[in-house]
Amino acid sequence: MLTCSIVGATSFTGTELIRILARHPHVKIGSLTTRSEEKIDARDLVPALGKANDLVIEKFNFKKVARDSDVVFVTLPHTLAMKVAGDFYDEEKIVIDLSADFRLHRADLYEDWYQERHSRKDLLKEAVYGLPEIYREQIKHANLIANPGCYPTGAILGLYPLLKADLIKHDFIVIDSKSGVSGAGKKLSQATQFCEVDENFGAYKVNRHQHTPEIEQTLSEVALAKIDVTFVPHLLPVNRGILSTIYVRRKPGIKKDKLAKAFESFAESEPFVRFYGVGKFPTLKEVQYTNFCDIGIEIDDKSDQVIVITAIDNLLKGASGQAIQNMNIRLGFSEEAGLIGV
Amino acid sequence: MLTCSIVGATSFTGTELIRILARHPHVKIGSLTTRSEEKIDARDLVPALGKANDLVIEKFNFKKVARDSDVVFVTLPHTLAMKVAGDFYDEEKIVIDLSADFRLHRADLYEDWYQERHSRKDLLKEAVYGLPEIYREQIKHANLIANPGCYPTGAILGLYPLLKADLIKHDFIVIDSKSGVSGAGKKLSQATQFCEVDENFGAYKVNRHQHTPEIEQTLSEVALAKIDVTFVPHLLPVNRGILSTIYVRRKPGIKKDKLAKAFESFAESEPFVRFYGVGKFPTLKEVQYTNFCDIGIEIDDKSDQVIVITAIDNLLKGASGQAIQNMNIRLGFSEEAGLIGV
Amino acid sequence: MLTCSIVGATSFTGTELIRILARHPHVKIGSLTTRSEEKIDARDLVPALGKANDLVIEKFNFKKVARDSDVVFVTLPHTLAMKVAGDFYDEEKIVIDLSADFRLHRADLYEDWYQERHSRKDLLKEAVYGLPEIYREQIKHANLIANPGCYPTGAILGLYPLLKADLIKHDFIVIDSKSGVSGAGKKLSQATQFCEVDENFGAYKVNRHQHTPEIEQTLSEVALAKIDVTFVPHLLPVNRGILSTIYVRRKPGIKKDKLAKAFESFAESEPFVRFYGVGKFPTLKEVQYTNFCDIGIEIDDKSDQVIVITAIDNLLKGASGQAIQNMNIRLGFSEEAGLIGV
Amino acid sequence: MLTCSIVGATSFTGTELIRILARHPHVKIGSLTTRSEEKIDARDLVPALGKANDLVIEKFNFKKVARDSDVVFVTLPHTLAMKVAGDFYDEEKIVIDLSADFRLHRADLYEDWYQERHSRKDLLKEAVYGLPEIYREQIKHANLIANPGCYPTGAILGLYPLLKADLIKHDFIVIDSKSGVSGAGKKLSQATQFCEVDENFGAYKVNRHQHTPEIEQTLSEVALAKIDVTFVPHLLPVNRGILSTIYVRRKPGIKKDKLAKAFESFAESEPFVRFYGVGKFPTLKEVQYTNFCDIGIEIDDKSDQVIVITAIDNLLKGASGQAIQNMNIRLGFSEEAGLIGV
Repeated sequence: MLTCSIVGATSFTGTELIRILARHPHVKIGSLTTRSEEKIDARDLVPALGKANDLVIEKFNFKKVARDSDVVFVTLPHTLAMKVAGDFYDEEKIVIDLSADFRLHRADLYEDWYQERHSRKDLLKEAVYGLPEIYREQIKHANLIANPGCYPTGAILGLYPLLKADLIKHDFIVIDSKSGVSGAGKKLSQATQFCEVDENFGAYKVNRHQHTPEIEQTLSEVALAKIDVTFVPHLLPVNRGILSTIYVRRKPGIKKDKLAKAFESFAESEPFVRFYGVGKFPTLKEVQYTNFCDIGIEIDDKSDQVIVITAIDNLLKGASGQAIQNMNIRLGFSEEAGLIGV
Repeated sequence: MLTCSIVGATSFTGTELIRILARHPHVKIGSLTTRSEEKIDARDLVPALGKANDLVIEKFNFKKVARDSDVVFVTLPHTLAMKVAGDFYDEEKIVIDLSADFRLHRADLYEDWYQERHSRKDLLKEAVYGLPEIYREQIKHANLIANPGCYPTGAILGLYPLLKADLIKHDFIVIDSKSGVSGAGKKLSQATQFCEVDENFGAYKVNRHQHTPEIEQTLSEVALAKIDVTFVPHLLPVNRGILSTIYVRRKPGIKKDKLAKAFESFAESEPFVRFYGVGKFPTLKEVQYTNFCDIGIEIDDKSDQVIVITAIDNLLKGASGQAIQNMNIRLGFSEEAGLIGV
Repeated sequence: MLTCSIVGATSFTGTELIRILARHPHVKIGSLTTRSEEKIDARDLVPALGKANDLVIEKFNFKKVARDSDVVFVTLPHTLAMKVAGDFYDEEKIVIDLSADFRLHRADLYEDWYQERHSRKDLLKEAVYGLPEIYREQIKHANLIANPGCYPTGAILGLYPLLKADLIKHDFIVIDSKSGVSGAGKKLSQATQFCEVDENFGAYKVNRHQHTPEIEQTLSEVALAKIDVTFVPHLLPVNRGILSTIYVRRKPGIKKDKLAKAFESFAESEPFVRFYGVGKFPTLKEVQYTNFCDIGIEIDDKSDQVIVITAIDNLLKGASGQAIQNMNIRLGFSEEAGLIGV
Repeated sequence: MLTCSIVGATSFTGTELIRILARHPHVKIGSLTTRSEEKIDARDLVPALGKANDLVIEKFNFKKVARDSDVVFVTLPHTLAMKVAGDFYDEEKIVIDLSADFRLHRADLYEDWYQERHSRKDLLKEAVYGLPEIYREQIKHANLIANPGCYPTGAILGLYPLLKADLIKHDFIVIDSKSGVSGAGKKLSQATQFCEVDENFGAYKVNRHQHTPEIEQTLSEVALAKIDVTFVPHLLPVNRGILSTIYVRRKPGIKKDKLAKAFESFAESEPFVRFYGVGKFPTLKEVQYTNFCDIGIEIDDKSDQVIVITAIDNLLKGASGQAIQNMNIRLGFSEEAGLIGV
């Protein structure tokens, strides 16, 4: 059995990885690490683990993790991830990096949007963007998988079938996304205090969220043309889940059936995409605690407006579930292994 | 002192009217009525009323209300409101109807969208749409005021300065709205059960919500042209508040300053509109329990996209607060009377 | 492989049973039934089921269920459950009834508290109360298992070690419980509408909740003496979980260590009980989506007051998880089968 | 018109004071101060203030506040409050201190429970405990009013009528309280992050909360005997409100009527106490945004157990509303001035 380790095991996404790996049928857990000195019982973070479970999260030690692991999941904040993921890659491990550090192909874009220097530009062309629905073939052979951001996953999967089949115009794509609070991570912040979020709702980083270039890069690769989007994220008073309402215009003459068909075929061929049809839409409840991306659409014949609504669990299909899906693909397992009935 | 009555006092909007009228400086409360047989102590619905308050909600009796009242607020469900509001209008009362029954000028549109026959078509041309920011002069003399819907209020106020000054294109207006649950009223429903709504989020009536024609009618009057919109409402797991994220395209050559200026002037001249500027946005907390409509905007120079975000309290500026504002205008009071420090 | 059916599969507890049974290693699902005419795709209720899953919930048909099943879970409302559970028992099935109908040994108590006639009094002495921590030996041979109520499970497990070892006085036992809303089931009700529950909190059925005699019956059997309790349930604005704060007085001379030791031994021997120690307490987060009952205690030396806090997931250890635990015991499986990593 | 200032105007309680004082009929606002350097527009904290309002919160300056003010509200954290409140008292201002610094008469108790030295012990005997229902006469003449804690207010008002009339035993008083998150103040903390609190519930500081001696001191004064209590606070996933479920035993021979009568008389004579009767109980909704303390009781004839449930808004009757009530008493205004229809 191959062994997986998690560097950054106490984050929300690290914790989800523990939960899934603990009952994955084909791999076992090696090292779980943290930046703090203190040892942590994994059951304190994942209370659903059985009483017999004795996994311990320990201070990060590169050599120990390298020795123990075939696969290393890195869930560190961006810029910290860069170095660690790079080091394990150099050590010939299979690295799945959940940070933003290897998602953008162009270092200048990264440095613009994240306002940090990139120290491993050499790896940008090695890294494969880990969205299985688009890059499955490359993922099969990748040793550095850049796991997509949560917003990009929901946004791209809603637009992919339309752009792929050339059904929509390129010049007016609006993505209005609403995310649960766990998307902000565990870092202490006034903006995520209960009294601030509870009974509240609002937009943030309007048209300047750092996930924008990631969305545009992937859509441009799909459309074989430069795609710009208007992306507005909002903060929902819920723990987990992202719902994106996407507005685009169909090309002249494209019939409703053709649009629906594009999504139907997509969902049929993908283990983790479900299509609800025209006029039927998912809510967060349908995807929470699952690795699915659920999609519904509507078409306004009057204006040629197409409305696509996608829902994902930001910690699963938007992060850790997708990371496991990538691992399954890379290691040749069933893509659903460990991910059904989460 | 003039006397106001509320027909439908036990609804969420009726209850808000009691709360505001109980401390309004210039009017007193006459009758509070309900469709049920049982008398209800108003303090059971508005616990903030003082212990000395002895208002009672009683079974509706047309003659009694007509005798008691100068102003009648009708908060009945649509189609029920039609008859009652009409009867009080015939009796020469000032009627402020919070239902949808007199908002649309065209009976055929009403009958299409609401799937009900309109029995008082004769009054559709008498009724004034009670959005003070646009129709203040007409409201001053109206005896039948059709108080706007909650979604239309937030949507229209975000678009009015742009259309009025002819700054945006007419052909691609998207309104992505998110509403608290009180907007659905008190009627028992599976969709508004706690276990359904809590930690959940989703769209409903996508592109077919009955508030669509109301928005289009008013925007068309402002723009002096037929305006169509794409309107997608969503249900938020919060009690009150509506946030609308509106996407439009500016006309060629319109500068950022000009767009900002349009909102600044609007807010300066309106007691209940506040403008946050470019790149600053309200959240629900800023408007809950107030009669304000708060607005912020962003402009994407690349795509000419203008993003307008408006926030209101659906029960106040979106219903009962606006009804009082209309009453204040009609009776010649300060427009803020009873509405500051709600 | 033995086959399990669920009569009442669309209830919250029925849905949880589907979720667990779908990945149980040692049994397979037979019939899933409902009282409505319409067929329901199980994936609509349990979105985490894989795309390949084709379980369908169908109109109840006694013969079909009887033919298909070795074990029948009944999650019908009380009084309806009575007949159906009885019929399957007569048919020599293993019946696990999640309703209240067979929990009380005395028909008169049942009829008093539930205000309904009991039509299968003959089975009251056959039924075994399915709380494994106390009645494991009887459960091993029972064909009619009365699965405990949610409140009783959390309350009894917090008092059992103390009464068993005779460490506390019998005459002043207070159980102050707080439950999530799913405990009320799916029935439409004003009291469980979002706008009623959200941001609210209150007690209900103070000192007259129908779970009181169930708690007293079991504690009396443990203490070998008549035990009365004061039981006050409250409704929390959360989906799932029950936290009970229990106040009792230790007997003279009982040391803190002895109290702690009683809980430690209990937790050591039980797969689904975890003890946090003196001065450390569980919150709902630690038990949600698990089958554990977590316990912490405090002792006030001044007053001899012992405070016991227990937490469970009302739909798992408080209902469906416990039902599976009972099935595992009855069928000789590992008690944890299907229940770790829920 | 007298002038009131608030030292610590940006805290939750400071903000509530601004809101109430801004529409108080008999006083005007002088200085609003903060510890930070930056000026803050009061409308940013109290969005319900009218557009014309131009109150500004400025860096604290003792001389300026002293010059401007007849009454000074201090809402600083404990130990900081001590010095500031003392200084204004020395300057012969009327000081209403919302911190814990002057609530306990005994400096040793303070130093034990708060683990801080008390630097103004000389004032402990000058300070009057500002619970109007018990100390109204002393408040009329007090220049240093120690405004009660939120938990003590709800707990004491539920026990006062019983102890005053000598209806209950002294030796087993349990107070099980549940508080909204605003009770914890605005200080950034992991324990009050949204993802921690949302959908969660638990006890904290079990039997060692610093409000315990404050409750015991007041109850002992009422009972003319040493009273000990068991006090367990819990954190609710709501913004505001405290509900306390209190368990006591009546003395032999005390009838249900006599218990009810004690509360009825209490409520009749108090402007901000409402009694629901036997078997009827308040929830948080009834008191949120009001200055009321609502009370309901139940009696268990079998065990002589009396259950008292009280509800308050922790920021109003539990803090700022009560501070205004104290000011009204001290200045000879109607006790309800500014506090009805909050």
